[in-house]
Amino acid sequence: MPVWFMRQAGRYMEEYRAVRAKHSILEVCKTPELAAQVTVQPIERFPFDAAIIFADILLPLEPMGLRITFEEGEGPVIHNPIRSRADVDALLLIEGEELRFVAEAVRLARRALDGRVPLIGFAGAPFTLASYAIEGGASRSYVETKSLMYREPVVWHRLLDKLARVVTEYLKNQIRAGAQAVQLFDSWVGCLSPEDYREYVQPHVRLIFDGLKGENVPLIHFGTGTATLLELMREAGGTVIGVDWRVPLDEAKRRLGPAVAIQGNLDPVVLLAPRHEIERRVESVLKQAGDEPGFIFNLGHGILPTTPVENVQAAVELVHKLSQR
Amino acid sequence: MPVWFMRQAGRYMEEYRAVRAKHSILEVCKTPELAAQVTVQPIERFPFDAAIIFADILLPLEPMGLRITFEEGEGPVIHNPIRSRADVDALLLIEGEELRFVAEAVRLARRALDGRVPLIGFAGAPFTLASYAIEGGASRSYVETKSLMYREPVVWHRLLDKLARVVTEYLKNQIRAGAQAVQLFDSWVGCLSPEDYREYVQPHVRLIFDGLKGENVPLIHFGTGTATLLELMREAGGTVIGVDWRVPLDEAKRRLGPAVAIQGNLDPVVLLAPRHEIERRVESVLKQAGDEPGFIFNLGHGILPTTPVENVQAAVELVHKLSQR
Repeated sequence: MPVWFMRQAGRYMEEYRAVRAKHSILEVCKTPELAAQVTVQPIERFPFDAAIIFADILLPLEPMGLRITFEEGEGPVIHNPIRSRADVDALLLIEGEELRFVAEAVRLARRALDGRVPLIGFAGAPFTLASYAIEGGASRSYVETKSLMYREPVVWHRLLDKLARVVTEYLKNQIRAGAQAVQLFDSWVGCLSPEDYREYVQPHVRLIFDGLKGENVPLIHFGTGTATLLELMREAGGTVIGVDWRVPLDEAKRRLGPAVAIQGNLDPVVLLAPRHEIERRVESVLKQAGDEPGFIFNLGHGILPTTPVENVQAAVELVHKLSQR
Repeated sequence: MPVWFMRQAGRYMEEYRAVRAKHSILEVCKTPELAAQVTVQPIERFPFDAAIIFADILLPLEPMGLRITFEEGEGPVIHNPIRSRADVDALLLIEGEELRFVAEAVRLARRALDGRVPLIGFAGAPFTLASYAIEGGASRSYVETKSLMYREPVVWHRLLDKLARVVTEYLKNQIRAGAQAVQLFDSWVGCLSPEDYREYVQPHVRLIFDGLKGENVPLIHFGTGTATLLELMREAGGTVIGVDWRVPLDEAKRRLGPAVAIQGNLDPVVLLAPRHEIERRVESVLKQAGDEPGFIFNLGHGILPTTPVENVQAAVELVHKLSQR
């Protein structure tokens, strides 16, 4: 079974921390040489079956008009969050030229990878981007986001439509620059009911996947806490559906059918556990996947910064060893 | 259909804010006259079908040995969080005398309610209490909690066993003081996989519900984000299963069968929406419940402090009006 880990280029690696000691996260993202360098770091060290371009899902929001800073340990802060129709109207419908540093990083990373493993591009999905843009950062309850959705549905749909158009072009540009698959991160969409997902989110996600159909690369559609949204996410699009640890892989497969592959779903906290516990959990995920094809081993969310590298090594090796049987 | 709202005695009511202007949340909890007073406030104003005793789920942790403060707008902070076997061993196995102010508040609230509506008692469930005790407050990812669970399962089970024993006695004391139903809040258990729930949580929740079987009152078992845990929660116990907006009521009923009632599940953010949107959503919840008995109308989580009182009034009246048809 192929294996890669979300945020596999990250703070848990000393090679990455060495780069970040000299450069902010935005500097790394905006300097193609650095972004390509950290993208390749985990491939040099671990037997991952794919690389994922180093970037941040919020990058498109900046040229659209939002002022974003990343506070160490605090996550992103958006200093002019979106709260009104005027705020949405002011957002620029960028076409990708403003994010050419990402496309260039994709080119450089492809060159550095030299065919060893495929390179995955990615973008944040409209709902998840909107939640940051509206809340002004991370959130627990998404009160402002849902309030805008319920109070101003026209403004909401206009915002998500803009985001969907920007994301589509952004992903196309990554693919044209060499990304051999792309993942859409709808990380926080699991805070919604199925009814809300269908009404407020699904059409915009569908626009993206429909727009990418001609690109002929695998399209991964990922979210967390999506147990009651899976069928609706599949309807929206994607050739691979990514799930977190809350949904057993066999249940995901049973519900989503043979037409899509399933990606997931080890809880990233497991990688902080003792070796025997990691082994037990990796085996359990593989057992849920069974012997059928159509699964990609991943975590259910990004690697935690405090993860010991030797645990990542052990987990990836174990996936290879057990799935070769 | 009967209707009450979690945190219906809260900051959204000016009567409550008037009390809190003079007293901290812990003072209100620990002064039975005040706790009973705010318990009854929403019953005086809205046609709710039940009252719930005013308290905080963290109250039992304090006499067990944790130092807790409530920072305005920040939520609870635990100044000596649990991280080791020694911390767990040091926790006192209290029997309820230390929390007699809650039982006394129940008595006073029963008297003030004078039979108008039944009074619900409550407690936090072991996992949710442990998550606060270990993280030192609210959390987004529960990394410390799950780390303890995975790294030190023996310590984990000892902690949850202690919490389960304390909670059982605490709820018994509330019932004996006059609570006519009790709700167990496992608010954050939805961060776990079904596998983890079964192994690390279910036995301890079962201990509580088994301990309450002889009490002959309805037992409500509530959590959020529990879409893949519902059957396991039912197995653990409870005569009513509470779900949030992520699980449609008809799906919950279909999965859980006729032996338990279902409580839920309006998203509390809906109560910040315009009236026509509230009406549409209340109707939708009632439609999912259908005409069968066995449902209790509630929110999927507590009322938000910024909720307009007139929206609460409208929602509660609409539930009564539509479910009388």
